[in-house]
Amino acid sequence: MGNDRGLTPQAEDFSAWYNEIVQQAELASHSSVRGCMVIRPYGYRIWELMQGGLDDMFKATGHENAYFPLFLPKSALDREAEHVEGFAPETAIVTHAGNAELEEPLVVRPTSEAIIWPIVRDWIDSYRDLPVLLNQWANVVRWELRTRPFLRTTEFLWQEGHTAHASDREAEEETLRMLGVYRTFMQEWMALPVITGRKTESEKFAGAVRTYAAEGLMRDNKALQAGTSHNLGQNFARAFDVRYQTEAGEHEYVWSTSWGVSTRLIGGLIMAHGDDTGLVLPPKLAPFQVVIVPIWRDEEQKSRVLQTAARVEGRLSDVGVRVKLDAREGVNPGAKYYDWERRGVPVRLEVGPRDVEADQAMCVRRFTPEGEDRKRPMPFAGIEEEVGRLLSGMQEELLTDATRRRDENTFRGVVEMEEFRRIVQEGGGFVYTGWCGNEACEDAIKEETKATIRVIPDEEFCSSEPPEKCLCGAESRAEVVRARAY
Amino acid sequence: MGNDRGLTPQAEDFSAWYNEIVQQAELASHSSVRGCMVIRPYGYRIWELMQGGLDDMFKATGHENAYFPLFLPKSALDREAEHVEGFAPETAIVTHAGNAELEEPLVVRPTSEAIIWPIVRDWIDSYRDLPVLLNQWANVVRWELRTRPFLRTTEFLWQEGHTAHASDREAEEETLRMLGVYRTFMQEWMALPVITGRKTESEKFAGAVRTYAAEGLMRDNKALQAGTSHNLGQNFARAFDVRYQTEAGEHEYVWSTSWGVSTRLIGGLIMAHGDDTGLVLPPKLAPFQVVIVPIWRDEEQKSRVLQTAARVEGRLSDVGVRVKLDAREGVNPGAKYYDWERRGVPVRLEVGPRDVEADQAMCVRRFTPEGEDRKRPMPFAGIEEEVGRLLSGMQEELLTDATRRRDENTFRGVVEMEEFRRIVQEGGGFVYTGWCGNEACEDAIKEETKATIRVIPDEEFCSSEPPEKCLCGAESRAEVVRARAY
Repeated sequence: MGNDRGLTPQAEDFSAWYNEIVQQAELASHSSVRGCMVIRPYGYRIWELMQGGLDDMFKATGHENAYFPLFLPKSALDREAEHVEGFAPETAIVTHAGNAELEEPLVVRPTSEAIIWPIVRDWIDSYRDLPVLLNQWANVVRWELRTRPFLRTTEFLWQEGHTAHASDREAEEETLRMLGVYRTFMQEWMALPVITGRKTESEKFAGAVRTYAAEGLMRDNKALQAGTSHNLGQNFARAFDVRYQTEAGEHEYVWSTSWGVSTRLIGGLIMAHGDDTGLVLPPKLAPFQVVIVPIWRDEEQKSRVLQTAARVEGRLSDVGVRVKLDAREGVNPGAKYYDWERRGVPVRLEVGPRDVEADQAMCVRRFTPEGEDRKRPMPFAGIEEEVGRLLSGMQEELLTDATRRRDENTFRGVVEMEEFRRIVQEGGGFVYTGWCGNEACEDAIKEETKATIRVIPDEEFCSSEPPEKCLCGAESRAEVVRARAY
Repeated sequence: MGNDRGLTPQAEDFSAWYNEIVQQAELASHSSVRGCMVIRPYGYRIWELMQGGLDDMFKATGHENAYFPLFLPKSALDREAEHVEGFAPETAIVTHAGNAELEEPLVVRPTSEAIIWPIVRDWIDSYRDLPVLLNQWANVVRWELRTRPFLRTTEFLWQEGHTAHASDREAEEETLRMLGVYRTFMQEWMALPVITGRKTESEKFAGAVRTYAAEGLMRDNKALQAGTSHNLGQNFARAFDVRYQTEAGEHEYVWSTSWGVSTRLIGGLIMAHGDDTGLVLPPKLAPFQVVIVPIWRDEEQKSRVLQTAARVEGRLSDVGVRVKLDAREGVNPGAKYYDWERRGVPVRLEVGPRDVEADQAMCVRRFTPEGEDRKRPMPFAGIEEEVGRLLSGMQEELLTDATRRRDENTFRGVVEMEEFRRIVQEGGGFVYTGWCGNEACEDAIKEETKATIRVIPDEEFCSSEPPEKCLCGAESRAEVVRARAY
């Protein structure tokens, strides 16, 4: 902090901007292990706030947290691979432990279906034991070749929900319920207006019957898959022999689901809202919602100003506002403004000697709807309520703004390949087109344009008049949303 | 649940009792990976409550959470090993990843000093960047040969604090501050009255200058090391070249500390309070503080009783009590009592038709101070306050009871080896003796009796008249607490 390193403008090089933000806002660092990142305190605090919001929603929908082992025997993954494509090419393998070679190598979990079901099968006897509604907060490892902080790292933190049900219908309901929880969280906490829908066969999770996803649009008009929810049918139950006795006394495989979001969400937060000044954080996920910067010229002013600033800090903190008084010595107020804007703090309160006399602070917002003033005086009287109102308002404005931006960069009814190419290459965004349902056509367009089918959107996101033809000219069987993506 | 498996009495076989409790209270299960346990939802909820209490205390003392990689290059551990005894014999090694052999093997973290300091050194320039006060909640792996759920597992969950300071004095203050935090947590949350003190040279953490520990006494009179806090001096700073510029402009190594508690605390909780009926949980760490068991004979009664029980559940839940209404069909009330007593729920409210008429519940406590009634009617009017008072009271009573038990099993002023042997072999407990300061003497007594020096106790735990002689007959240089331990 306190440095005057510049920030590459987004329009010039979005990728450079992203990497600089991650460093300069002190969200993450590289480590000496390839592809493994260090989540620094400021970044980790965002993750803790995300965890808090999500965990409450998981518990409110009846889920319990548990913890399963980091390792699974290689044979268990191989067993899964007989039924579904496995993660084998991406795994890290432990071959030695306690100064000896292991009889059977252990795989560091890339996801935990093959760990959880061989254990939880013993907890299930009859339909009375269903549903099983579990969630785990954990680290997982996937040996990625190209990595980027938060977006794609060898080790990452996530939650993985795993549930078992007595019918296909219940499993499907659970899959969609959790997709809905993700969507609500992304909108209400992250101010990220996502499109939800189903993945195509080629884009779905290998072990799933159906994969649903929530897709957000970043400020460079690329899509980010922010969360997925899988209906696994009886695939894993068959692979690991997870059965239950039905009310009629028969033995049936359970239907299972899994769903997850990861520290990737922090990458999404950065790219959805950040600007050329730096990070922009929605108040609900800001480590500090308010920073107070005291301004003084001499010792006499300093003592008065700091006393007042500390009182305001205490009052805001008492009502649950996450507030920081930046009383650093030897750093001028301008440098402090710069630091906290770079780090995305929603509200700054400047308190100088004249403010103390006038019983007010100068309130400066990190972002404003167009046409509104960024700066205004805020009286100390009732400042708790006023700051509370301001923060809720800003949370909503950020969502409104992101929604407007998404809608401006959403193109519907595109039927000509030429037009599709132009949109994808020139500006990007979500492009609604028809799709013939043919996997070869899907692959060819992906190959040529690098734009993939993000989802077959849920009904409410569909166009009132969907295209009748696919980009290939054949008859459309479903409207789809295409985009280049992270 | 709902089974009628018996429980081995503690006096008959404490170890069998422990293993049965872990299974029957559904705290943990075994996995197919040797030594790795599964923490089941009921056990994990206790861990979450512990995390919540500790994390607030860490934040209140200025610490920030962060996350560092799971892996470290083998060379980094070797580098540490040049300076301090390493964890090499206990580590798990990744040799292959992404379908290829790694150029350099990776070690799965057994602890993170050798990961954190090579990274955090880049965050430290001058004295202005100090202190660095970090904490990490993480999984770690130590390849133990003999494992027991919670007490010693190959993978376990823990928190590890890592801090850096500008002077030895500050590092020592931090080490003792965090030992104090642990002690407060253990007493106020776990109702576990610990003895704090310093470890001997042979019992300290290999990389530390001084190791402090909090030791609790279990119901079989064996000691449990519940938490440790290490003053690392400049050992790790030297190993990883972590220096800062002093105010005078010189370059100096930082002084660092580390401190940790783990899921082992759950093992301590079980063994400190559990009895022959099952688990006994302090209200602050009970997943359910109150269980409501409705009692009915026919449908008419059932509907009235359930309605009332649900209302009481709602009222208690509204004031923040963790309450569960056990409305299971086909399980009689007696079986429900049995289940929840086995699982340690502090308070049971029985609600039958006559209770509904009398506007009251029958309140049954899981544990009572001697001479007090276990059962009493509790009117619905004001039940929120009454339950709140009861829970706070029980939290204190459990600590009082555990303190009494510890004091009854604490033996001071033991100078004769013969007496020491007898105490250790017949009943166990904390035995205060003198110590000559000689490591060979320490080892010999440990070898013969399996009792180790747990700590050189902090002043407040010392005897008013400490023994003048060691058990070996030589002059005592320090009073020590000895015990057999987990």
